[in-house]
Amino acid sequence: MKLTIERAALQRSLAHVQSVVERRNTIPILSNVLLDAGQGRLSLTATDMDLTIVEEVPCSVGEAGATTAPAHTLYDIIRKLPEGAEVELTTAGETGQMALRSGRSHFTLATLPREDFPTSGPSDLPRAFELQAEELKTLIERSRFAISTEETRYYLNGIYLHAAQADAVEVLRAVATDGHRLARVEMPLPSGAEGMPGVIVPRKTVGEVYKLIEETDEPVRVSLSETKIRFAFNDTVLTSKLIDGTFPDYERVIPSNTDKTMEVDCRSFSQAVDRVSTISTEKSRAVKLALADGTVTLSATSPENGSAEEDVAVSYGGPPLEIGFNSRYLLDIAGQIEGDGAVFQLSDAASPTIVRDAADGTALYVLMPMRV
Amino acid sequence: MKLTIERAALQRSLAHVQSVVERRNTIPILSNVLLDAGQGRLSLTATDMDLTIVEEVPCSVGEAGATTAPAHTLYDIIRKLPEGAEVELTTAGETGQMALRSGRSHFTLATLPREDFPTSGPSDLPRAFELQAEELKTLIERSRFAISTEETRYYLNGIYLHAAQADAVEVLRAVATDGHRLARVEMPLPSGAEGMPGVIVPRKTVGEVYKLIEETDEPVRVSLSETKIRFAFNDTVLTSKLIDGTFPDYERVIPSNTDKTMEVDCRSFSQAVDRVSTISTEKSRAVKLALADGTVTLSATSPENGSAEEDVAVSYGGPPLEIGFNSRYLLDIAGQIEGDGAVFQLSDAASPTIVRDAADGTALYVLMPMRV
Repeated sequence: MKLTIERAALQRSLAHVQSVVERRNTIPILSNVLLDAGQGRLSLTATDMDLTIVEEVPCSVGEAGATTAPAHTLYDIIRKLPEGAEVELTTAGETGQMALRSGRSHFTLATLPREDFPTSGPSDLPRAFELQAEELKTLIERSRFAISTEETRYYLNGIYLHAAQADAVEVLRAVATDGHRLARVEMPLPSGAEGMPGVIVPRKTVGEVYKLIEETDEPVRVSLSETKIRFAFNDTVLTSKLIDGTFPDYERVIPSNTDKTMEVDCRSFSQAVDRVSTISTEKSRAVKLALADGTVTLSATSPENGSAEEDVAVSYGGPPLEIGFNSRYLLDIAGQIEGDGAVFQLSDAASPTIVRDAADGTALYVLMPMRV
Repeated sequence: MKLTIERAALQRSLAHVQSVVERRNTIPILSNVLLDAGQGRLSLTATDMDLTIVEEVPCSVGEAGATTAPAHTLYDIIRKLPEGAEVELTTAGETGQMALRSGRSHFTLATLPREDFPTSGPSDLPRAFELQAEELKTLIERSRFAISTEETRYYLNGIYLHAAQADAVEVLRAVATDGHRLARVEMPLPSGAEGMPGVIVPRKTVGEVYKLIEETDEPVRVSLSETKIRFAFNDTVLTSKLIDGTFPDYERVIPSNTDKTMEVDCRSFSQAVDRVSTISTEKSRAVKLALADGTVTLSATSPENGSAEEDVAVSYGGPPLEIGFNSRYLLDIAGQIEGDGAVFQLSDAASPTIVRDAADGTALYVLMPMRV
């Protein structure tokens, strides 16, 4: 293999693929990136066995060929080269080494044979549809904060992506929950996604996809089977195993019997919750909401710290109600609301509460109350 | 106690004093800040028993008095109040509580009696002199990176500040070393510092003083005895115990027999060291310098990663010499050099090397070599 490539282009692609590579690997070749040069292009592949990313970048190929080299080390070297540099990568036969030259720098990197690099073979992903990067970003953004980190409930460690009916309209839905709060975001079902299986996209995949699409405005092609999902855009293809489990029947958690509605200015509400929760114990983070005509009184007490209380003006006409929440969960949800107003739909102190963006019906959040 | 104060002023002073308060304290009152109001001023005091900071801030006092309240909690509350807010602090008799009101927020904080707050009594600090904030900043900046973190060598856990003779001129010197590298910075001895005792200022004190003087242009009044040092400026007074130990005879470490001189462009040298050291093992961080006529060749090898080599143009006319250094220490020192050129004075591969800023004679660094 022999190729010359612009440092900036190589750095960009390496940044993408090295992010998938775990810092510690018991299987040495998983620390490496597969470099495959041919026909004016360098293809870079990295995998952790569950998630595989392939990216192509133009380069000048002197001799086609492939090898694998340490992903993080290679990325660090490229990153530290001066702006505007050209990089030459060369392997000579089966020496087990790759030479990297740029300006007055010369590196020799240990390689492992490309044959040892795990490839998952072609897979049949029968269902395919297209999303705008912006749409996919919103689906992820509004739901990922609720993904569970409890490893024992592995089926909650991702976003549940599926087709559903909402008021007789077909929608694509992203749902995540950790049992304490739930986020449900939807958009019109893209053509091709009709009857798609419900799939659970793992947390790490969600994070990597999000990072990548943040840089693009291109449409994203999503293809999937019962066990795999693929995201393709520009010159990047990310293929991930799905979580093999059953996502709980989340509709059961969304209350339908809420009879009280409170609307509040989201910004001043968040700031007040943040202030009052300063007093909450680090462990419970509990904040009490006491609703009365036109006002919600936020309060918190802790044996060590003392107590806090703050009134916020709301639009509420129902009977007085006291209900407690984890302040961090309240703030997480408030952080998703882009409009001015947040609407709370409540029934009583022991039942889940619905929170919505007053200006946007596509996202819905459910919050379990705490005893306070 | 009853007072009203601008949130911005209180936040600024609390930010300063709470920084001294440790996050975990076995003695509860050490988590508190002493608030003492009288004559249009609020005085705030925090201590960790070794380091005490007192700051005064103007306020409107309704009733003079004092109490102690949790420093970090109080700071967090004030920080989260809206800009431009006014804060009212009230204690009523011996209730063990302080009320904090601002806008629609109302907090009650647990207090501890002011009588229980440790005060160190008036101390006699016979030696006193004045430094410009900028001068003190330079003394700290250029030396603190070399302070040892090894707790067993407690006498190296600070900056050694003392009066010395340099070429028949009286200077104030700051020296720090961890046994691997040494930094020595000096400035003309300020009047009043003649014959001052050599004192070791602890790392934490150095850090707090540095943070505080970063915000000021005022002269800093330094007073000291054999056991204490005090820094006073604006409305802030910081008093610290000194490290009770003997700083080693650092002059012995500074070689006087260097017979080779290399001058290098500091920026390109640092960048090359940084690149080449990507290959060094995480543990040793070793980089080899091979000096020859007009060039230094930097190189690193590691069994796992491979090897790296880079040439940097230097002004050097001596015989070929190979010497190894810890790349992180090289970069630390290069980071202190503001001018373009760094001058290395070497003798052989086993002897300490001197590094200087070609454009500034007031700082000198010594670097122990590594076997490579």
